Amino acid sequence: MKKWGFQANQKLSTAADNIIEVVHSKIRNEIDEDDQRPIIPFGYGDPSFSPLFRTSQIAEDAVVEALRSTKFNSYSPPLGVPHARMGIAEYLSKDLPYKLSPDDVFVTSGATQAIEIILTVLAHPGANILLPRPGYSVYEARAACSNLEVRHFDLLPEKGWEADLDAVEAIADENTVAMVIINPGNPCGNVCSYQHLEKVANTARKLGIMVISDEVFGHLTFGSKPFVPMGVFGSIVPVLTLGSLSKRWLVPGWRLGWFAVNDPSGILKETKVFDSIKGCLHVFSDPTTFVQGAIPYILGKTNEDFYRNIISVLKQNSEVCYNKINEMPCITYPHKSEGSLYAMVKLMPSLLEDIDDDMDFCLKLAKEESVIVLPGTVTGMKNWLRIFFAIEPSFVEDGLERMKSFCQRHAKRH
Amino acid sequence: MKKWGFQANQKLSTAADNIIEVVHSKIRNEIDEDDQRPIIPFGYGDPSFSPLFRTSQIAEDAVVEALRSTKFNSYSPPLGVPHARMGIAEYLSKDLPYKLSPDDVFVTSGATQAIEIILTVLAHPGANILLPRPGYSVYEARAACSNLEVRHFDLLPEKGWEADLDAVEAIADENTVAMVIINPGNPCGNVCSYQHLEKVANTARKLGIMVISDEVFGHLTFGSKPFVPMGVFGSIVPVLTLGSLSKRWLVPGWRLGWFAVNDPSGILKETKVFDSIKGCLHVFSDPTTFVQGAIPYILGKTNEDFYRNIISVLKQNSEVCYNKINEMPCITYPHKSEGSLYAMVKLMPSLLEDIDDDMDFCLKLAKEESVIVLPGTVTGMKNWLRIFFAIEPSFVEDGLERMKSFCQRHAKRH
Ligand SMILES: Cc1ncc(COP(=O)(O)O)c(C=O)c1O
Ligand SMILES: Cc1ncc(COP(=O)(O)O)c(C=O)c1O
Repeated sequence: MKKWGFQANQKLSTAADNIIEVVHSKIRNEIDEDDQRPIIPFGYGDPSFSPLFRTSQIAEDAVVEALRSTKFNSYSPPLGVPHARMGIAEYLSKDLPYKLSPDDVFVTSGATQAIEIILTVLAHPGANILLPRPGYSVYEARAACSNLEVRHFDLLPEKGWEADLDAVEAIADENTVAMVIINPGNPCGNVCSYQHLEKVANTARKLGIMVISDEVFGHLTFGSKPFVPMGVFGSIVPVLTLGSLSKRWLVPGWRLGWFAVNDPSGILKETKVFDSIKGCLHVFSDPTTFVQGAIPYILGKTNEDFYRNIISVLKQNSEVCYNKINEMPCITYPHKSEGSLYAMVKLMPSLLEDIDDDMDFCLKLAKEESVIVLPGTVTGMKNWLRIFFAIEPSFVEDGLERMKSFCQRHAKRH
Repeated sequence: MKKWGFQANQKLSTAADNIIEVVHSKIRNEIDEDDQRPIIPFGYGDPSFSPLFRTSQIAEDAVVEALRSTKFNSYSPPLGVPHARMGIAEYLSKDLPYKLSPDDVFVTSGATQAIEIILTVLAHPGANILLPRPGYSVYEARAACSNLEVRHFDLLPEKGWEADLDAVEAIADENTVAMVIINPGNPCGNVCSYQHLEKVANTARKLGIMVISDEVFGHLTFGSKPFVPMGVFGSIVPVLTLGSLSKRWLVPGWRLGWFAVNDPSGILKETKVFDSIKGCLHVFSDPTTFVQGAIPYILGKTNEDFYRNIISVLKQNSEVCYNKINEMPCITYPHKSEGSLYAMVKLMPSLLEDIDDDMDFCLKLAKEESVIVLPGTVTGMKNWLRIFFAIEPSFVEDGLERMKSFCQRHAKRH
């Protein structure tokens, strides 16, 4: 009798170690069950827990109707339901100087699966990809699963979290396949200007790499800069744009995302990247067909008021964050959030008595105040904190008050 | 200005070449648009196109209710919604000599994603996996994506499509991680007996490999043998069981599957396979949360009549297939289907005038008769044909009549 011959790909046990859910649940476990106060969920990126952030009736009805029609119980075509691809192409084209065709759009199980597919396609032996720091750790985990080497460039807080494009040029080499930007930013809450995106495009063009633009927070802006999709620069450099229903429509559980090929010059077709994408989509599981069936209605018919209301709550919450954080001497807030659902703030543990670092801060804050905040380490930035503010306004106030008294209690006495 | 530096992982453009959808659409393209007769869909494995195979009202209502409740708009926990895992564990435990815990069950985006996750986990460098021939080509495609070497063992038509376990022993080596069985069988329509499954378990135990049992067609049996889940033998050898809503509940578009770890001795925990599975689930996209929310109702409350009605139509369609195929001299039907939704029959091109092989047969049949049948080549068996019969009974009759006249028209004259 042979001993067991199977072993597992060990990269996978560790790939997830730095995933938000894993760190989040470690912090969550610290919470004192006897604390009668509500838990303040600044840690996780899911707006749908709050009744204020309920999706539109139109979206919900459209899904029910698609399901009840029984026309969408079948397997989806591998690249997506045609009229969903059409609806997404139309939605995205509104902000572009050219029209996307439905053939340029692929429907995925959330942007998460789009990341999975794109990184799988780009992972030829020896390849490397440039990721922003701070960033969204699913990219790092996915790259590890595909044996794709990761190189980081910094986002610069003193420049409103713009990408350090000199660093991009310095770390790229002939094996670099792409650079990723996240706009509006997770975790930084920054919104890229037209000028900066143009520079990104020119840098990528110079290096001969494509741009992957994660626009999962597209249109969620409440500062002075409007959202500009990277696809605007698709004729300078091939751009893959990622999006999903998760954030703007507040339904991450519906698992409906997409990616679009913004490549009017057809370079990705020439280089066979397009073929590999299609091959990959044939092998991977598809998003739920009846949710795809509802896409044209959700994207086309959602009321402007719905979008406006969300932005107005976010803007208000973001202001409260800014003001309250500035009352905490041990935390600075170098660049006020202008978009997405997050504020990125800097912790100075040296001003605190018994706090080693961001992780220690978050664990103790959870234990003492039932407030969950994400340590910046998860995003690649030690001693920063990411605060998610798409929650009830009263929770934002309450949570930040508790953070403030936590900081006061732990402050070094002079 | 550098030339474009990206290339794609080329394995992916070809991995999908033998995927059913790809071959199917090639055949579909042959159909004469001017033929007024309905297209007969014997080719594809999706029962939901036929009004006869509509899912139960209970299932549909359960999904609508979960969606309307707004309790399932959030991201799913990475391993699945707890009460969905509980519902699946209870459903599977009914047929097992021990009780599965919800912790042994993981919810996936169809069994397709379960295959993806399991093969990704098992693909350590140098590893190989044993797959049945004929089989389901997604396994081969997925293995190619993960650099997992594939070795085939035959299913033996003369033994009711039992696995050739001598071959399994001959091709396994110290780098073999697992063997796959599909029961009830796609494409063979066979149902494995208790005795055969026990032999599979003992063979795997002897070789020190695990068994992956694809039970996507579980309980869809209409011959003399009952469905026995491989998990019954979990104490001989660790078994991963795959299932989904797609076939028994006729809703492949809902993308809801699962896999269960049947391993009462805890070997997969010891060997860290369990940890890698969990790591992987944290990185991959999850199935739609509100469909998960409906699982306990769908699995627990679907009426026995619903199941019985489907089986009765399948049994009747299968009989018609058997009788009609036996009227075609150029096709033999060595083992009558007892389960799943398919009949596997053997083509003898030598008895036909101008037909080279199975692919040629299928292309010409589509063109001349608007009948789509899947060439056995896609399943790994040249000059066989797979006939999908979960369609309207009148279509079955009509389609087979057309096939018969096609065969007569192309028969060699003596
Ligand atoms: C930057 C970024 N990209 C992608 C995703 C994944 O989004 P989805 O829910 O569409 O899978 C998230 C989710 O938080 C995100 O923050
Ligand atoms: C043997 C087998 N396994 C897995 C699958 C995939 O099933 P699902 O729809 O659950 O992804 C199929 C689909 O036809 C199949 O035939």
